[in-house]
Amino acid sequence: DAPLTLIAGPCQIESADHARRMAETLVGVCADLGLGLVFKASYDKANRSSLKGARGVGLDAGLRVLSDIRAEFGCPVLTDVHDAAQCAAVAEAVDILQIPAFLCRQTDLLLAAGATGRVVNVKKGQFLAPWDMANVADKVASTGNRRILLTERGASFGYNMLVSDMRALPVMAATGYPVVFDATHSVQLPGGLGTASGGQREFVAPLARAAVAVGVAAVFVECHDDPDNAASDGPNMLPIATMRPFLARLMALDRLTKAA
Amino acid sequence: DAPLTLIAGPCQIESADHARRMAETLVGVCADLGLGLVFKASYDKANRSSLKGARGVGLDAGLRVLSDIRAEFGCPVLTDVHDAAQCAAVAEAVDILQIPAFLCRQTDLLLAAGATGRVVNVKKGQFLAPWDMANVADKVASTGNRRILLTERGASFGYNMLVSDMRALPVMAATGYPVVFDATHSVQLPGGLGTASGGQREFVAPLARAAVAVGVAAVFVECHDDPDNAASDGPNMLPIATMRPFLARLMALDRLTKAA
Amino acid sequence: DAPLTLIAGPCQIESADHARRMAETLVGVCADLGLGLVFKASYDKANRSSLKGARGVGLDAGLRVLSDIRAEFGCPVLTDVHDAAQCAAVAEAVDILQIPAFLCRQTDLLLAAGATGRVVNVKKGQFLAPWDMANVADKVASTGNRRILLTERGASFGYNMLVSDMRALPVMAATGYPVVFDATHSVQLPGGLGTASGGQREFVAPLARAAVAVGVAAVFVECHDDPDNAASDGPNMLPIATMRPFLARLMALDRLTKAA
Amino acid sequence: DAPLTLIAGPCQIESADHARRMAETLVGVCADLGLGLVFKASYDKANRSSLKGARGVGLDAGLRVLSDIRAEFGCPVLTDVHDAAQCAAVAEAVDILQIPAFLCRQTDLLLAAGATGRVVNVKKGQFLAPWDMANVADKVASTGNRRILLTERGASFGYNMLVSDMRALPVMAATGYPVVFDATHSVQLPGGLGTASGGQREFVAPLARAAVAVGVAAVFVECHDDPDNAASDGPNMLPIATMRPFLARLMALDRLTKAA
Repeated sequence: DAPLTLIAGPCQIESADHARRMAETLVGVCADLGLGLVFKASYDKANRSSLKGARGVGLDAGLRVLSDIRAEFGCPVLTDVHDAAQCAAVAEAVDILQIPAFLCRQTDLLLAAGATGRVVNVKKGQFLAPWDMANVADKVASTGNRRILLTERGASFGYNMLVSDMRALPVMAATGYPVVFDATHSVQLPGGLGTASGGQREFVAPLARAAVAVGVAAVFVECHDDPDNAASDGPNMLPIATMRPFLARLMALDRLTKAA
Repeated sequence: DAPLTLIAGPCQIESADHARRMAETLVGVCADLGLGLVFKASYDKANRSSLKGARGVGLDAGLRVLSDIRAEFGCPVLTDVHDAAQCAAVAEAVDILQIPAFLCRQTDLLLAAGATGRVVNVKKGQFLAPWDMANVADKVASTGNRRILLTERGASFGYNMLVSDMRALPVMAATGYPVVFDATHSVQLPGGLGTASGGQREFVAPLARAAVAVGVAAVFVECHDDPDNAASDGPNMLPIATMRPFLARLMALDRLTKAA
Repeated sequence: DAPLTLIAGPCQIESADHARRMAETLVGVCADLGLGLVFKASYDKANRSSLKGARGVGLDAGLRVLSDIRAEFGCPVLTDVHDAAQCAAVAEAVDILQIPAFLCRQTDLLLAAGATGRVVNVKKGQFLAPWDMANVADKVASTGNRRILLTERGASFGYNMLVSDMRALPVMAATGYPVVFDATHSVQLPGGLGTASGGQREFVAPLARAAVAVGVAAVFVECHDDPDNAASDGPNMLPIATMRPFLARLMALDRLTKAA
Repeated sequence: DAPLTLIAGPCQIESADHARRMAETLVGVCADLGLGLVFKASYDKANRSSLKGARGVGLDAGLRVLSDIRAEFGCPVLTDVHDAAQCAAVAEAVDILQIPAFLCRQTDLLLAAGATGRVVNVKKGQFLAPWDMANVADKVASTGNRRILLTERGASFGYNMLVSDMRALPVMAATGYPVVFDATHSVQLPGGLGTASGGQREFVAPLARAAVAVGVAAVFVECHDDPDNAASDGPNMLPIATMRPFLARLMALDRLTKAA
């Protein structure tokens, strides 16, 4: 059992400068803590609740930002892909291609992502049972690429709310692929603000602790220097200034859990 | 309140001949009954539970089949699109572009479908509250195209099961767009067969009656001459031989409902 | 298939005079329409959201009110029981003993109700699958009393909301016992007002129509001359003045459904 | 933050001897570990899925067993009450009166339990939102008795399955009352075996770890020397022989969590 890894960054690339500053802060905190970091940011929010939501800087600008961050800080970077046609270009700039939850059953996208040879992180759809992720992983693995991560990010629970079923973590781990717990999107209140999704930031830390105590390979947490004014997912992002004690606590829990 | 319309056909185009025979039967039944028909069939099943599921005949062959049916029988045809890049080509061959439920928040796809000027039928995601479909419709309408249909096809209810919330019908109708009840996919048991989705065919008729008594513009029902050997969605398709009495009953309910 | 029966009345007996007036109005409307009526009212609301909610007039006063109504108007009456010890006394005053949803698995209560020989109407728990009502009915039937009704009143759907799964109606009907659709409590928003349950009165009529089009023996609807000032369940009771057209429409749907 | 307490024992009192042996084993393990123990066992299973399920030894015999165990081993004991009339007698024999989840809104039962002055442990209904437990606790506290525990034991999630929402733990803790996580009933599959509830014993340990890492006052776990042949809840009880390492791990997690 390898020690916990962190996948973190702002929801979207708001600007080259902002993304770089977020990466710099996270790299510093993780170096201090001895925690492996994958920097995460999106170049395109392709499925916002409404048209009013900011889409992002776009593919070309976004990939430049991410590859610059990778070059400057030497940390792996992750971003999401929305279309089979994007996968090859994205794979040149990033280390991990992420399949959004709504798209986790789109065969062509899974095959294209797998074919790049990069690590593929598939988020479990809010509509999917955890045991059904084995079929999803098989689609990626059919390309010969078995560098797959499976991410829990909440299951539909009535309307405008998700629930984090911690059973999903061992169920998905039974596939043999590393499992990630996305503590940010698990506390989304989808569509809960009318034309945007709300969120319950106060539950990010307890749910992340719960997942680490169950046992996960990585935790995914979005953070921002000013979440309440972020371009997207503000209600469920953590203030970046609070990350250090939060992460230290997760690492201690992870050591205890994996020592057992 | 216009009388009920039927959207029907096999889940996928299994062959030109099979699709044509299904269309011929449905056209005959609907002509006898005086029921408006939109013929439906898919050229690509892009999000099968597993790789083992048949994908379909593909875009070019599929569109040829659909436009031939439209030409021969004079009925409008509907098919689903999975990618913004497909929309223009599909719009040349069919009357209604359908957005699959998993993709109902993909902005680019909604905009591309809207931009064709064709009718756009958006299936409500299994993860979406009915009131959130107003934002989805707004995305399509932002193209200037207000020829929009909104379809209820079940909401996630625990794992591997959907529930049809009949409240969704009036909630979505409050947008002003016609509402469709998809009686076939509402009885899916997603992933319920391990590497395929199960279904509860026995509930297609009662749920369709319920929806018509609530009040809908159209009912969507997949049917097949041999559903148990169909390439996809067999467990929830109706045998085409049973369609006539089923439809006659819905029409009587619809007349009574809309007379009130 | 016997024609539809109505179970109706105010949520609770607010006073002898109020209950009598509600009964008088309902008896008049149902006589005009040719609709069988069971008058319903509760003498004790034993499970209010909070202590602040009014409990009701109590057992003795309540049973007197109900038996007076039965004597004056000649209609059967129904009330709920909460405790095995109450069943015998209640059975002397009323025709149908109702088991509240939260109590549908309490064996002693089911046995005591069954032992009275009166009709027993068991509401399906919000936490119970419809097929599990066969075990519940078996408990009652073990007393030798097979005069059992099974009522759908919504299933838990996330927090503070229920969903009406219309599949539950045929599933419960497969037991052979008559099935009732409770259109009032199905639109409750349990606990939704903080210290009381909210409700969605606007969905009572469409859900009742849906249930009748699926096919039920009876519809259960609470009504009140001034629901917004009722002692309980105001947000989901219908104004009694609106009952006539609502019921006429259900009866027409029922005739059509049962003629098929 | 007081250290973690354990509430444990067999689901029901199968015999005086069996209950005594289970208590003896648990007392020994907990003494070794330095873990506070409340011994739990039921004298009556009042809401079995079907009549076929064993009910238990009954009130008088059960209370004798429990008070003997309390006297012999000096540990507090807990049992559930189903009826207001039972509370006074039960309170003489046990330290904690437990309100079953189905009955958590029954006002008379809550008041009678509160009036005994004993600790009252209310299990959150499968149909209840965690914030609605404040109203439930207020009912008990209205008696002047504020020795209240609130227990999470799973929320309805579709049919025949529960989900453990770890957010419920801090939400209920905001009432100021200690919160318990019931790891046994949270993994029940209610009604899942047709005439009995199934269970997922393999998830008891991960869910208990998750809850402890979130932070709870106590964990509730049923255990048995031969769970597969137990009179009730066998599929979700832990073998008592496996308790020691399981509890040691929870204690370490608890120390780490409460040190933060």
